[in-house]
Amino acid sequence: MTGIRAESPLEGEERWARAAISELVEPANHTIGRMLAECGGVATLQALRHRAAGTDRDLYVRLPGLDVDRIARDVRESSARVVLPDDAEWPSGLDALEQPPYCLYVRGERALDEVAERSVAVVGARAASDYGQRVAAELGEGLAARGWVVVSGAAFGIDAAAHRGALAAGGDTVAVLACGVDRSYPQAHARLLGQIRQSGLVVSEVPPGAVPFPGRFLARNRIIAALARATVVVEASLRSGSLSTASEARRVHRPVGAVPGPVTSATSAGTHELVREHGAVLVTDVADVLDLAAPIGEATAPRRTGRSRATDSLTEAERRVWAAAPLRRWADIDRLAVGAGIDQAVVVRAVAVLQMLGLLEGEGDRWRKTRSGS
Amino acid sequence: MTGIRAESPLEGEERWARAAISELVEPANHTIGRMLAECGGVATLQALRHRAAGTDRDLYVRLPGLDVDRIARDVRESSARVVLPDDAEWPSGLDALEQPPYCLYVRGERALDEVAERSVAVVGARAASDYGQRVAAELGEGLAARGWVVVSGAAFGIDAAAHRGALAAGGDTVAVLACGVDRSYPQAHARLLGQIRQSGLVVSEVPPGAVPFPGRFLARNRIIAALARATVVVEASLRSGSLSTASEARRVHRPVGAVPGPVTSATSAGTHELVREHGAVLVTDVADVLDLAAPIGEATAPRRTGRSRATDSLTEAERRVWAAAPLRRWADIDRLAVGAGIDQAVVVRAVAVLQMLGLLEGEGDRWRKTRSGS
Repeated sequence: MTGIRAESPLEGEERWARAAISELVEPANHTIGRMLAECGGVATLQALRHRAAGTDRDLYVRLPGLDVDRIARDVRESSARVVLPDDAEWPSGLDALEQPPYCLYVRGERALDEVAERSVAVVGARAASDYGQRVAAELGEGLAARGWVVVSGAAFGIDAAAHRGALAAGGDTVAVLACGVDRSYPQAHARLLGQIRQSGLVVSEVPPGAVPFPGRFLARNRIIAALARATVVVEASLRSGSLSTASEARRVHRPVGAVPGPVTSATSAGTHELVREHGAVLVTDVADVLDLAAPIGEATAPRRTGRSRATDSLTEAERRVWAAAPLRRWADIDRLAVGAGIDQAVVVRAVAVLQMLGLLEGEGDRWRKTRSGS
Repeated sequence: MTGIRAESPLEGEERWARAAISELVEPANHTIGRMLAECGGVATLQALRHRAAGTDRDLYVRLPGLDVDRIARDVRESSARVVLPDDAEWPSGLDALEQPPYCLYVRGERALDEVAERSVAVVGARAASDYGQRVAAELGEGLAARGWVVVSGAAFGIDAAAHRGALAAGGDTVAVLACGVDRSYPQAHARLLGQIRQSGLVVSEVPPGAVPFPGRFLARNRIIAALARATVVVEASLRSGSLSTASEARRVHRPVGAVPGPVTSATSAGTHELVREHGAVLVTDVADVLDLAAPIGEATAPRRTGRSRATDSLTEAERRVWAAAPLRRWADIDRLAVGAGIDQAVVVRAVAVLQMLGLLEGEGDRWRKTRSGS
């Protein structure tokens, strides 16, 4: 009975069994995921402890060091809570994942499911350009101003800009980490993460104290994608990890948006490829993003229109007469008719309209363009 | 028998009848288009002269001034030729138009049909940004360097940059004008149009001497779209006339590409809308454009890849061991195994590989990251 700690006050509880599993096993393990779905956390942990969870020896390598009391203490000390699939707070979107988290560690006041209900993931390259960071901050701010929550990964570059934009607008934001919720990764974002904890949520599927492995970033990305109603990639090089967030979102049938940028910018090559090759929707502003994320009828982008011009309201005949009118010399009705290729009677009416609109001026029975109209 | 000039040596010839019609009637007139399709140019011109071509009085307003000899002289003097739908040189793409040109005026040595066979329309805003002009010039140059012909409208901004790019690469380019092929519009492009005439073609559906009306620009755009195998819009505001070239291309089932740009740039709003709302393909370089324009198998874009990193070739186990290794202190195999969550036997092999790759360094039986690998 290797490693069983019968003295633990938490033994037998589903919550701490799953917490223990999240310490023993790396995220998104197929074997463990299947066992959890079939027999729950307590039985799965028992199987792990009896080395009966499969032949993958990696599953057992952390067993000797397992201390459920310590995990519980770490969770308490980092003001976090452990959220399970059966909890009311568990966001239903996570159930769409092929490999849902064993449990989630959550830090912050608000209920995760409510926050996720009106959220958009805004993610992108760490090595972002000024342009990308500005767009991410504006999207974060715009979403927050409309009562939407920004979900991201607290990384350098796009992630941080999106979180900061949301905070600047007094909005909620969720940071999903690849390390424990008590850690600040990257270290330089300790203050940012502190702010997010204050008004939003910090979430992870690995226990307090856990360090961010490369594989944990990829696993983390699927949580971001499944939590949010839509995922928007602001900037990404062709190798950016944020592209994996986009694939995860596609996998759980959540809409993916991508922000375009200059074709000369390597940090936009990934977003362009998302649009070109993977059916991502090109998004340029908050309205576009809400078109993507909001249920039909809840929010739609107002149609964009360019600046209007004086000649916009003209009929084709009026337009042609106006074009046929000289700028300096004067032209009579016959000349305008021949120039425009329009019958004289129609030209007379067109001239009247154009004069009324200030586009033509008259001298006797001759006409020319006004300076202001041309 | 108003206006009939029985004395014209050209009377009765289909070519000059159609040329006369192109002077009498604005482009894309439905009535005249139907008559031409049904009874040809000679009969249609007769009907016009007998004022029997319909009740639209605009059709007859230029009749008194018609002088077929003068048209023939103007054509000759501007070194142009009149090309008809039955001519070998007529590009078959134009037949897909709902309103094909009555005839085309062509200036330049090469045969229009051959040139159109391997051509791409590169169009866009007159008020283009430096970015847009740079991209247009690079596309023009890249297409020309691969033996493709650039078709455009010789306007300020994107059009001119595309033509110039093609000329810079010693390639052929086609300018389709909204005025006569003898005119330089805009005037500032007189020299550019001269160069295009030298090595490429200048094309119009309105006769020599004709001035560019607004309606003629729109009509001209359908010729650009139908001539080229694909249309690429490089930059366009939401009101840019180049968006009409894109709609015309869609209408004749030619592929449309759009170049993205910063979302903060008004001159990219139109191209973004083309991608978002009208199914245009996002294109970022010549390879993308040829993917769009070339017959399957003739040219395809090589897949883009990002810069490779030392850790790219690692297995997941090696990656985790490498991540678990400290940077300053030393860790033994047991510690690396627990950190990575991987069985010791696998860790030993991973450490060997990582050391070989210069990513880990050893001291006795303990290991840490090398400076260069991290």
